[in-house]
Amino acid sequence: MVPKVMIILGSGSDIDIAKKSIDILEKLEIPYSLKVASAHRTHSLVKALVKEATEAGVEVFIGIAGLAAHLPGIISAYTHRPVIGVPVKGAVGGIDALYASVQVPYPTPVATVGINRGDNAAILAAQFIAIHDPKAAVKISELRNEYATKVIDSNYTVIDEIE
Amino acid sequence: MVPKVMIILGSGSDIDIAKKSIDILEKLEIPYSLKVASAHRTHSLVKALVKEATEAGVEVFIGIAGLAAHLPGIISAYTHRPVIGVPVKGAVGGIDALYASVQVPYPTPVATVGINRGDNAAILAAQFIAIHDPKAAVKISELRNEYATKVIDSNYTVIDEIE
Amino acid sequence: MVPKVMIILGSGSDIDIAKKSIDILEKLEIPYSLKVASAHRTHSLVKALVKEATEAGVEVFIGIAGLAAHLPGIISAYTHRPVIGVPVKGAVGGIDALYASVQVPYPTPVATVGINRGDNAAILAAQFIAIHDPKAAVKISELRNEYATKVIDSNYTVIDEIE
Amino acid sequence: MVPKVMIILGSGSDIDIAKKSIDILEKLEIPYSLKVASAHRTHSLVKALVKEATEAGVEVFIGIAGLAAHLPGIISAYTHRPVIGVPVKGAVGGIDALYASVQVPYPTPVATVGINRGDNAAILAAQFIAIHDPKAAVKISELRNEYATKVIDSNYTVIDEIE
Amino acid sequence: MVPKVMIILGSGSDIDIAKKSIDILEKLEIPYSLKVASAHRTHSLVKALVKEATEAGVEVFIGIAGLAAHLPGIISAYTHRPVIGVPVKGAVGGIDALYASVQVPYPTPVATVGINRGDNAAILAAQFIAIHDPKAAVKISELRNEYATKVIDSNYTVIDEIE
Amino acid sequence: MVPKVMIILGSGSDIDIAKKSIDILEKLEIPYSLKVASAHRTHSLVKALVKEATEAGVEVFIGIAGLAAHLPGIISAYTHRPVIGVPVKGAVGGIDALYASVQVPYPTPVATVGINRGDNAAILAAQFIAIHDPKAAVKISELRNEYATKVIDSNYTVIDEIE
Amino acid sequence: MVPKVMIILGSGSDIDIAKKSIDILEKLEIPYSLKVASAHRTHSLVKALVKEATEAGVEVFIGIAGLAAHLPGIISAYTHRPVIGVPVKGAVGGIDALYASVQVPYPTPVATVGINRGDNAAILAAQFIAIHDPKAAVKISELRNEYATKVIDSNYTVIDEIE
Amino acid sequence: MVPKVMIILGSGSDIDIAKKSIDILEKLEIPYSLKVASAHRTHSLVKALVKEATEAGVEVFIGIAGLAAHLPGIISAYTHRPVIGVPVKGAVGGIDALYASVQVPYPTPVATVGINRGDNAAILAAQFIAIHDPKAAVKISELRNEYATKVIDSNYTVIDEIE
Repeated sequence: MVPKVMIILGSGSDIDIAKKSIDILEKLEIPYSLKVASAHRTHSLVKALVKEATEAGVEVFIGIAGLAAHLPGIISAYTHRPVIGVPVKGAVGGIDALYASVQVPYPTPVATVGINRGDNAAILAAQFIAIHDPKAAVKISELRNEYATKVIDSNYTVIDEIE
Repeated sequence: MVPKVMIILGSGSDIDIAKKSIDILEKLEIPYSLKVASAHRTHSLVKALVKEATEAGVEVFIGIAGLAAHLPGIISAYTHRPVIGVPVKGAVGGIDALYASVQVPYPTPVATVGINRGDNAAILAAQFIAIHDPKAAVKISELRNEYATKVIDSNYTVIDEIE
Repeated sequence: MVPKVMIILGSGSDIDIAKKSIDILEKLEIPYSLKVASAHRTHSLVKALVKEATEAGVEVFIGIAGLAAHLPGIISAYTHRPVIGVPVKGAVGGIDALYASVQVPYPTPVATVGINRGDNAAILAAQFIAIHDPKAAVKISELRNEYATKVIDSNYTVIDEIE
Repeated sequence: MVPKVMIILGSGSDIDIAKKSIDILEKLEIPYSLKVASAHRTHSLVKALVKEATEAGVEVFIGIAGLAAHLPGIISAYTHRPVIGVPVKGAVGGIDALYASVQVPYPTPVATVGINRGDNAAILAAQFIAIHDPKAAVKISELRNEYATKVIDSNYTVIDEIE
Repeated sequence: MVPKVMIILGSGSDIDIAKKSIDILEKLEIPYSLKVASAHRTHSLVKALVKEATEAGVEVFIGIAGLAAHLPGIISAYTHRPVIGVPVKGAVGGIDALYASVQVPYPTPVATVGINRGDNAAILAAQFIAIHDPKAAVKISELRNEYATKVIDSNYTVIDEIE
Repeated sequence: MVPKVMIILGSGSDIDIAKKSIDILEKLEIPYSLKVASAHRTHSLVKALVKEATEAGVEVFIGIAGLAAHLPGIISAYTHRPVIGVPVKGAVGGIDALYASVQVPYPTPVATVGINRGDNAAILAAQFIAIHDPKAAVKISELRNEYATKVIDSNYTVIDEIE
Repeated sequence: MVPKVMIILGSGSDIDIAKKSIDILEKLEIPYSLKVASAHRTHSLVKALVKEATEAGVEVFIGIAGLAAHLPGIISAYTHRPVIGVPVKGAVGGIDALYASVQVPYPTPVATVGINRGDNAAILAAQFIAIHDPKAAVKISELRNEYATKVIDSNYTVIDEIE
Repeated sequence: MVPKVMIILGSGSDIDIAKKSIDILEKLEIPYSLKVASAHRTHSLVKALVKEATEAGVEVFIGIAGLAAHLPGIISAYTHRPVIGVPVKGAVGGIDALYASVQVPYPTPVATVGINRGDNAAILAAQFIAIHDPKAAVKISELRNEYATKVIDSNYTVIDEIE
């Protein structure tokens, strides 16, 4: 089965951020694949992965990288599909990776989410897909409602505890 | 005709950033509408606009705002459609608006683009739509190719000038 | 009894910051209530809480939130009562939440205090109330004097220790 | 007539920020006074002004200062009334003054508003006063509604212009 | 015996930074005194300490403070003696305290040293005193030479270890 | 004649920074070529230019780019020759481009120079070449001496003027 | 006559900051000299100037520099006299020069003043000298009083203007 | 045997960063030497080391330093050989050292690499040497290929683990 989302990790050491994406995509029942490929160290691999995936029908890419995080911008250079960037926290708090993802110039945008936010990247990817996939839209709403309930419930669990 | 993209400006004074989006959307022949509504000053208007537009079939929202730019995050709270945030430059270079857009928590992502980048917001919106709209996909590729040609040509126009 | 201060936490995980506020409000004998509600995830709950509390006579709101901390600004959009924002420290040291609170535009101010400063938020809330409540004013002065004494005493406790 | 708000400017060169406060206070019909006094250069004057004003019945102080903006924190040290800090933009975009105002420690809070935001300082001061002054509360609501109308109208004035 | 240097700590919790100063001053045989006094919480105590110390012949003040570190600037307002500021690291890495110390305006300078650098503050204080105290000048040179030797020796101790 | 240095501009609009490099390279009589090619918009062109130039004998590359400046890092991915990055100033003062250049991970370094410092990039390129080219080494020393003389002379030109 | 203060400018282009120092030193009747010498470009000149000046009796050095402002730290390495650093504003607002001056390690402190604050550098230099020069102390007090009067007077000049 | 690379550590406490450089240089079989010398504390030692090493045939210098990291800039002032700067992380995340290294002015460039990146400094040094040393060029390519293989393999090791 062709995945709808391809997650590319710039470095295997950031696997925990990818896991956050995977947890959400599995709850949303959106097929995905996960790869490790570096924009600097295995540039040809990134290109091959992105070109092939685009042709095979992957609809959204997620690039997860820290430091001078070129990965999402480079994915964007190789596909006309939307690319989501997840900056990873490092020595300067992730600001380096945030800038490297969000400040990519016209006409190669990267849809950047918060520092270390693999979870939001997955929701966002699902939202793109859900534009023409009503079942996905329903799943997203369910997940958001479930989380809202959790917030509301914390009025009992968290607050009651301190009273 | 129902617009596919709704652009919401937090303040009429940021109209020039919206114009950058509009220029691209018109080239891509993607129908859009433009509104001014503030997350703080006309909160009900934002809610009404977003709820109605979502029901009417708007597929992507673009929120353009500076300072403590809550607008894109609040749009995201009212719709399951993807929301793009454009941070506007101000006293601290736009870093305040960048954080306010990109650091929105789970599960309400904002697909943030660069500071003042109305153009990239439009390309990104078109990419979302193009997932299931091959004609839009072709238009995006044409625009990107056209721009690539412009960069290549600047090897003659810009460089020749100084030689 | 109607609380005079309503504390709203954006996330149950920031309960320790709220506890700092509560400790002070209890010392000052100012009635309060504590709620968890997210500007993005349970927007309607925020609106309902703030509207009802305002009508019921709550005099000051405290919004405690991290990341793209929209909570205090959104509370401010729903009430004419003063709203205090407490930015919570995260990946970038709390600067994101600080900007998101303090840079809210005209005419929806947020009275922002320091990063993680639940204690100062409580003192500030009490100061607003004390404008027309001489008993509260006395309590604040007592608390400040008590703290001043503690600082003066540390000339013995802290310094003597190292001599 | 005793002013309800005292605005203290750290330097006469920041008079334009004070004017923003004054414009709003006059619209809200809240009596104010304006002084120039520096926390470093005329420390005794600050102390005298604040002590006398507090005794005379001033209810809120606004301290406007740039650089290492100690003024609002020092006002707060001399009064139990609430103090609003307005950081003024300078070489580093006003971040120095923002920190100097917002990071004042317990138990001497400064209710800090945005960089150069004399207007929000005035609204905030009015909100404190309005806790027990229903007429002021009405005035604030009118001003906020008037501004909301202006935002809504900019859908015609600003947007029509570009169509 | 009248101390030549007075160290004032804004908070007893920063005692470790003061200890760094004391270690150096004792090596240099410069008499000092240490006090805890907060610019915001015990303002009158700061004033009294500084005024009396100046009259008694204290030649240099060191103010150690974090957050919105007003202490060194306020000491400077009460004396014509030179004042050294030591910013203390906190949530934002000490940048808040650094700005609050170094950006104090004309004509009330604070001689600011690095974040947490109690040691450099002591050397600097000694350098001021040594302008007219040849014995202190000799002691400083000895200390600097001793440290240079330590650096040179680390070519053996540190490097040999890894070879 | 094969150029020893290839300068690649990410955007024709940054031509003034390239001119600074060219001025120095011409003084040092080091042959160079200048191209415009974007890491995102004309990725294949970057690859082709760098691969061909490396084979043809180009010894050093200079990549000049602003925003999320991926250009120097991408050049580095395509060649084993040293790559110099020049960050270009933009909305956030060039910090985005600085991080994007300097924080490129192992083992694909970018030798980063200061913001807008086309001149230093040229000197640095010449220093690499001069390791085995004594004539270039002499030229560099002459240029540095000439500049030192200019600094020394400004003791007369600049200072005399104000006396 | 031997100057008591030596001002060294890293670059002739920052002469305006030096003029601020000179204006104050002349008011205080403190003899000074002004030199241009770069820590990187004319390193030997810096060394010679500082060594000779120290021996000749110069009591305080002021180093004025921007960018990676090594000048004050290097002066400090060559003398046991106190050294004042004045960071000059550039592309990143002067933060680079501020860090380069203030973060110099133990035991080579630089007494750093605010960005572009040649005036405060001069006052500070005078304060060091005044420790054992009662006449200079009187001059400083006069200057500070004069400035305080100017601040007080601006209550008439600045405020009256807007009323 | 004359080393080709001289690594100078500003402080023995940063030995771990130097070890990263050494590991790479040993893999590349490039002879090196390691010294500890501080730009501020043992300035003459730095000068002597750099002058002698340059004359003896050292081809590249690496300066590793934190805080106001003057070391690489000062090495650059004493040699016409290329100098690589490695900023070391400290209280403000290494931004102070990054600026101090990268912002060194014309004509004394420092080829700056990422924060704590001793490894990239070594690769870069090897790249300079490899311009005229084909054996070194082969070694660098091997190392880069080896690392690329490691990244590719992590598709099995890292990803398989979570599936």
